Amino acid sequence: MPLPVPVLPEGVDPAWLPPAAFRAVGGRRTLIRGSGPLVETVHGEMAEACRRFGGRVVRDASDDGPYDLVLAVSAGDLGEEGFTVVREGGTTTVTASGGRGLLYGLFHVVRLGAAAFTGERSQETHRPALATRMLDHWDNVAVHPVMGQVERGYAGGSLFWEDGRARGDLQRVRAYGRLLAACGINAISVNNVNVHATEARLLTDRIGEVAEIAGALRPYGIRTHLSVSFAAPIVLGGLSTADPLEAAVRSWWAEATRRVYEAVPDFGGYVVKADSEGQPGPFAYGRSHADGANMLAAALEPFGGTVHWRAFVYDHRQDWRDRSTDRARAAYDHFVPLDGEFAPNAVLQVKHGPMDFQVREPVSPLIGAMPRTRLAVELQVTQEYTGQQRHVCWLGPMWSEVLRFRPEERSVGALARGGLVAVSNAGDDPFWTGHPLAQANLYTYGRLAWQPDAEPREVLDEWIGLSFPDAPARLADGLHAVLDGSWRTYEKYTAPLGVGFMVQPGHHYGPSVDGYEYSPWGTYHFADRDGIGVDRSAATGTGYAGQYAKPWAEVYESPDTCPDELLLFFHHVSYGHTLTSGKTVIQHIYDTHFDGVEEVEAAREVWAGLVDLVDPARHTRVTELFEEQLRSAREWRDQVNSYFFRKSGVPDAHGRRIY
Amino acid sequence: MPLPVPVLPEGVDPAWLPPAAFRAVGGRRTLIRGSGPLVETVHGEMAEACRRFGGRVVRDASDDGPYDLVLAVSAGDLGEEGFTVVREGGTTTVTASGGRGLLYGLFHVVRLGAAAFTGERSQETHRPALATRMLDHWDNVAVHPVMGQVERGYAGGSLFWEDGRARGDLQRVRAYGRLLAACGINAISVNNVNVHATEARLLTDRIGEVAEIAGALRPYGIRTHLSVSFAAPIVLGGLSTADPLEAAVRSWWAEATRRVYEAVPDFGGYVVKADSEGQPGPFAYGRSHADGANMLAAALEPFGGTVHWRAFVYDHRQDWRDRSTDRARAAYDHFVPLDGEFAPNAVLQVKHGPMDFQVREPVSPLIGAMPRTRLAVELQVTQEYTGQQRHVCWLGPMWSEVLRFRPEERSVGALARGGLVAVSNAGDDPFWTGHPLAQANLYTYGRLAWQPDAEPREVLDEWIGLSFPDAPARLADGLHAVLDGSWRTYEKYTAPLGVGFMVQPGHHYGPSVDGYEYSPWGTYHFADRDGIGVDRSAATGTGYAGQYAKPWAEVYESPDTCPDELLLFFHHVSYGHTLTSGKTVIQHIYDTHFDGVEEVEAAREVWAGLVDLVDPARHTRVTELFEEQLRSAREWRDQVNSYFFRKSGVPDAHGRRIY
Repeated sequence: MPLPVPVLPEGVDPAWLPPAAFRAVGGRRTLIRGSGPLVETVHGEMAEACRRFGGRVVRDASDDGPYDLVLAVSAGDLGEEGFTVVREGGTTTVTASGGRGLLYGLFHVVRLGAAAFTGERSQETHRPALATRMLDHWDNVAVHPVMGQVERGYAGGSLFWEDGRARGDLQRVRAYGRLLAACGINAISVNNVNVHATEARLLTDRIGEVAEIAGALRPYGIRTHLSVSFAAPIVLGGLSTADPLEAAVRSWWAEATRRVYEAVPDFGGYVVKADSEGQPGPFAYGRSHADGANMLAAALEPFGGTVHWRAFVYDHRQDWRDRSTDRARAAYDHFVPLDGEFAPNAVLQVKHGPMDFQVREPVSPLIGAMPRTRLAVELQVTQEYTGQQRHVCWLGPMWSEVLRFRPEERSVGALARGGLVAVSNAGDDPFWTGHPLAQANLYTYGRLAWQPDAEPREVLDEWIGLSFPDAPARLADGLHAVLDGSWRTYEKYTAPLGVGFMVQPGHHYGPSVDGYEYSPWGTYHFADRDGIGVDRSAATGTGYAGQYAKPWAEVYESPDTCPDELLLFFHHVSYGHTLTSGKTVIQHIYDTHFDGVEEVEAAREVWAGLVDLVDPARHTRVTELFEEQLRSAREWRDQVNSYFFRKSGVPDAHGRRIY
Repeated sequence: MPLPVPVLPEGVDPAWLPPAAFRAVGGRRTLIRGSGPLVETVHGEMAEACRRFGGRVVRDASDDGPYDLVLAVSAGDLGEEGFTVVREGGTTTVTASGGRGLLYGLFHVVRLGAAAFTGERSQETHRPALATRMLDHWDNVAVHPVMGQVERGYAGGSLFWEDGRARGDLQRVRAYGRLLAACGINAISVNNVNVHATEARLLTDRIGEVAEIAGALRPYGIRTHLSVSFAAPIVLGGLSTADPLEAAVRSWWAEATRRVYEAVPDFGGYVVKADSEGQPGPFAYGRSHADGANMLAAALEPFGGTVHWRAFVYDHRQDWRDRSTDRARAAYDHFVPLDGEFAPNAVLQVKHGPMDFQVREPVSPLIGAMPRTRLAVELQVTQEYTGQQRHVCWLGPMWSEVLRFRPEERSVGALARGGLVAVSNAGDDPFWTGHPLAQANLYTYGRLAWQPDAEPREVLDEWIGLSFPDAPARLADGLHAVLDGSWRTYEKYTAPLGVGFMVQPGHHYGPSVDGYEYSPWGTYHFADRDGIGVDRSAATGTGYAGQYAKPWAEVYESPDTCPDELLLFFHHVSYGHTLTSGKTVIQHIYDTHFDGVEEVEAAREVWAGLVDLVDPARHTRVTELFEEQLRSAREWRDQVNSYFFRKSGVPDAHGRRIY
């Protein structure tokens, strides 16, 4: 039985799967070969496309050929997710070894569009570079008094939960799964890594709600994961301890996990934030994080599950007066000594930078420093520190820089073993992502997880082609003009030269240069009347630069070789210090802040000019958000410039207005 | 029937009315003359005191005399609240014209203690200087997601409300009323001036809950008031407007008010925060605040009620870049043009300073500038900006300075006509006020409202005598050492020289020098590398200084004559500017911050030495709070000193540690 395509609720945007995206495949004669649930998903997609565009789809070859398109599962060595595409004699053939591969192959043909059905095409093999391509939802079941329904969520409520319960809107969940499959994501964690009381119970008596979500995502090749509390044996099991080496604790987890798999046979595993920002963890029992992770890995192992153990462990109650403690060092210091101790089904999940998803950070030195550990790199698609989906900020170029960074050769293997994880930016907003153009971030993330060395600009082309299938080149040009440079624009009008933070405490939206300067969070810039930046050199600073292998340890060690964009992350320099660009630090701060605002103004003009090419709801929403982005960018410019002018006393070389 | 003294729940502190405070009156032969509910309250007090200390109380003179104490209501011209005391021939006689006067007279005798019964005492007449001596409770009925059960409450939950409903614990409410009567308070507003949806309904279908509270307070001479929403005709009445000149709106208020008085015959009136920080108000209809206040005054007038209309109106969405707008000017600019337009039963409630309850502000120029308006001065007993009842900060000296300030002679009359109002610091905490020593603030407020020119130190003596009736002089000396200078100590280690704010945004606890510097709230210090302060002079600044009458307009106008403690409120000066004290501004900042912390350390030592004289629960609580105060004071010292050292580059003359 072909699986019907999910019906979107009235008013919900189809994102990158509008019906017209299927025009090219929907008008053909198609043969589908193979069996299994995901083949039925493929059949449902083709049936809907053909219904719309006049084609025909059959399931066996007894029907007369020839076919324009053949989608076939057959034994082979492509793995569960790989596929080949070839076009010969007027037939385009996709072959996969499994149903998931066939689904990915179908979406590949959809992306190709008419080009998939013209001329000849020699055989190409596609396989994902990373086996796990995961989204973590920081969704709360019960509305949190401070963080709300979705922690760091900027797209309405949760797709899964509402006011303490599962929403039950499984059509919307299926539609979400379909969008994710179309960009290659194959795993979701459905609740916040900060596991509060209500959410903890998803593991036990409320697993049925998780099972329903898992059932809706399964036809799209997505396995469901769950964030759990390390203290679950105490808070749910009534034990007196959560010590990972205690037999009763281990049995409790084994039994709890067995029951999870009864409810969700293809359950993906657990996500754990332990000993981090107040969450419980193994330190309370004098155990290591390997002890903690391995206990959960042992419980999951019989069923093929994985534990994702987050490396985001640092002292969040640091004294700002203590300059010897450096939060940037923390993950490396905590975890590198444990390399080799983690179980094969334990994945250490490492944020891409050493701090916390700033607009500019160096790549974490932990990546590459644990060759005997499965590492997953964690990105943040939700724009916590990059405009909170009120600002246009397409993160493809940043992620691409991260994914192409090579600390040493062996890191490539480490990354591939553990996969890529990202914090989702989606919610129950009609556009899924609050800002309609933030859809591009979600799509780009999925595609980079499949192919980390893809050109982000080409991924953006794909997204444009799918989302606006009938649009003229002028729209594509306009979208590129608005999106391509938007991350660097955002960087220009916010915190300069890699120094980070300078945001409003708590919600993290908008500027506050000293907002975290005297806080316990370990995020400082040390600006005084003479200079700014954090000395993280090995010679005179915190030693963080020495956590890198060569060549980076040497490059970062000196202000003379450190790249401009990371200068203040690694060094404290005077305002008069001259950058590679030839500008002084202070003039760079002024110039980038004036430039950044002008770039937002220019992007807003480009968008205004696209009014005839974009549907009114989308155009209006983005237009309104540009007003807010521009207001906010000016606020950033004026606060940052005033702050540094008041402190340095150096006037702008061009005499522009500084308040 | 004598009214029994309320029974305190187990573990609740008797504050300034412990049983032993009644030792002197409880062992006597007492005659009570007169009738009425409050005479029964007096009788109940005496009955309980006699039960404990062996005295005897009778209600008519048929019993054999002589009496040690006669408490008599008899016709006279002392007003409802006045009383006389005289001692002749071994009999102490209190005479009042009404029951409330008699109750105040009784508490006066309690305060005198044994001295009331020795020797002769010529007749003294006591009358309150101010007719209204009011406490505003910023208590929410439903827990607010950000502000909680009590907005700016630092003493547990509300005495009146819990989780959306009246608590129903009327014994505790009665006990509270009794404490307030003993210091002279005669009016309470029972809900937050920010009136949210649940609280709005207290006016209509939930008035019964207010009536129960009013019933518990009435025997202590306290009238109950209610904060109402200006938008009530819309949100409760279903009207399409709240325009104060619209007939339907006026009828709605008249009818709603009639029903309130059916439920609470001695209802005090309404408190209104309109057009302030987002609350609705008459501006929306193009009407003046006099129009708004007078509409409510008209509804209340037939029943003898009063509307308290707050003057806390300013632009809370100001642009920090606009230096011409000065929040300090706002109340004067808004209200002075309306002088003479307010109804006789409308009271304009003015915060004592032009900003918002900072540790140091000039007295508001509005006080004294509206001779034809009933003004009430609003103080803040709850320590929002003065340590949040975790720091010892006895505010008596500050309030005394405010109350003794004479902008011009006519102001005295204006102040007396409207009364004194303060935001309460009490809650359901076992010590009522969180910090046990914060009880002294509540007591002092009440006594200063009765007699604004009282010596605060003598009021503190009263409080000590009542609260610790059997303690030796060493305890009194210790409490004075801890409390007397605590406000100036707090001032020293926080924001310097009247500049204000520099607190963490939102909750306002702890330092953040730039926390409000680039905010829309109108609270700036304008510190740069050369100097600091706000030029509010008439000649070169915002003109605020010109809102004062002479001599103050001239005194504040020049940095040479402006008092040191307000210098940065009125002037922007260089760090090298020399104060009257002979110190530079920057050295004053360093010195006061080091001194302030040392003073906290010294007070902590004094308190530690009182361990044998104070009950263990109280001593332990204060000891723990001193740890927090000291930690916080050091944080203030180090942040403020580091901030100004980084900005000015001027080293401390004494080479002390600045981080």
